[in-house]
Amino acid sequence: MQPIGRTRWAIAEGYLPGWSNGPEPQLASHETVCLLNAGYRTARVEITVLLSDRDPAGAFRVTVPPRRTLHVRFNELRDPEPIHADTDYASVVESDVPIVVRHSHLDSRQEANARLSTIAFGSDT
Amino acid sequence: MQPIGRTRWAIAEGYLPGWSNGPEPQLASHETVCLLNAGYRTARVEITVLLSDRDPAGAFRVTVPPRRTLHVRFNELRDPEPIHADTDYASVVESDVPIVVRHSHLDSRQEANARLSTIAFGSDT
Amino acid sequence: MQPIGRTRWAIAEGYLPGWSNGPEPQLASHETVCLLNAGYRTARVEITVLLSDRDPAGAFRVTVPPRRTLHVRFNELRDPEPIHADTDYASVVESDVPIVVRHSHLDSRQEANARLSTIAFGSDT
Amino acid sequence: MQPIGRTRWAIAEGYLPGWSNGPEPQLASHETVCLLNAGYRTARVEITVLLSDRDPAGAFRVTVPPRRTLHVRFNELRDPEPIHADTDYASVVESDVPIVVRHSHLDSRQEANARLSTIAFGSDT
Repeated sequence: MQPIGRTRWAIAEGYLPGWSNGPEPQLASHETVCLLNAGYRTARVEITVLLSDRDPAGAFRVTVPPRRTLHVRFNELRDPEPIHADTDYASVVESDVPIVVRHSHLDSRQEANARLSTIAFGSDT
Repeated sequence: MQPIGRTRWAIAEGYLPGWSNGPEPQLASHETVCLLNAGYRTARVEITVLLSDRDPAGAFRVTVPPRRTLHVRFNELRDPEPIHADTDYASVVESDVPIVVRHSHLDSRQEANARLSTIAFGSDT
Repeated sequence: MQPIGRTRWAIAEGYLPGWSNGPEPQLASHETVCLLNAGYRTARVEITVLLSDRDPAGAFRVTVPPRRTLHVRFNELRDPEPIHADTDYASVVESDVPIVVRHSHLDSRQEANARLSTIAFGSDT
Repeated sequence: MQPIGRTRWAIAEGYLPGWSNGPEPQLASHETVCLLNAGYRTARVEITVLLSDRDPAGAFRVTVPPRRTLHVRFNELRDPEPIHADTDYASVVESDVPIVVRHSHLDSRQEANARLSTIAFGSDT
């Protein structure tokens, strides 16, 4: 399969709810960046997290093997630092080969969970 | 009507919840790929499902008649193999004529259902 | 303000739930096509509804005055024909000037309402 | 980091629910425009709000510092005028440097909150 996608993506919104209301781990409140690598080369990916009141956090580094998808939970990023709950953020995802990026969110702060998922903004420059 | 769309699309996220909580079939947890073929030629479509820990599944083949829409539930794909619940996946949709692709999801694991729907990433190369 | 947008848009998914559970009219289950006309000329818009098992319905005609937004509920389209509930559909929106199109949905079939909203696929050809 | 994005964005839908059902301020019904400025220059941003029955409101002016994100609640815009609840609107976001724009919504009118988030339509002209 030919690769598909872009090498730079921006996710203009991020927010980790401060609490949850559902069985762990599937229904814990969380945010995920979903990476798709359709080509035959490993994707080396850097995620930079932009904040509202300080310099960016990261870069967080992950790799996506060829012809694989990887779902990364922002909650679980630890190196070089964790992302705080209840804080507005945004992110830029940069890869050395074309990938496709989507951002999704499960919010279980109330009795029923709310989900959202949005394509990121892709660019090659 | 002129055709509209692209010939290659990527859906960077997929996840079939492992259980449901609502009247079948409308409110069973499910994920759907929605295909729109606005032109006057039948679209021959291949869906390849990318996983996190093994080679891709598929290709699953469907056709969309001219000037029709087709909503395909991932849960119901069987040939060449079913997609397991509670597993992260992603997909690439390839067509011989321009189509438009959207991905939607209904999650009824809790008392109230959550829905999301996202435009796929379209490309002609 | 300069116009912004495209002249052809496709919405690859549509589905009118068959029932509601909330105060009318704000929380009745519905689907809306949201049209934004940022320019100084009236937009003459045609909405064609694609179905899975018959020829398209419409075209439904609406106009969006200059520098205005118009939210059209699919439930309320009557001319040339209504759109049936509990039926999969998709739509193509064509305008004589650039506009921006979004599709949103409120599903109140269960105790809590679910909402989704997605940018349509825009094209100039 | 290189800048990423576009200088003009359109959000084709907006609607501020008239009431809420959840702890303030996190779960009050609200709509947010999320701005990401990945570059090294401050972004001067103008938000114009289009309505269905009168001339546009605004422009509302905000700035996004370099390498920062800013989440703006439409509910809190006051200058030159507030946006009324229970009214359809849309918006155009214009910046002097490339940014990325997303629109999100939390609706807590019923027992469980519903969220949606959508990438805006980006353009450079």
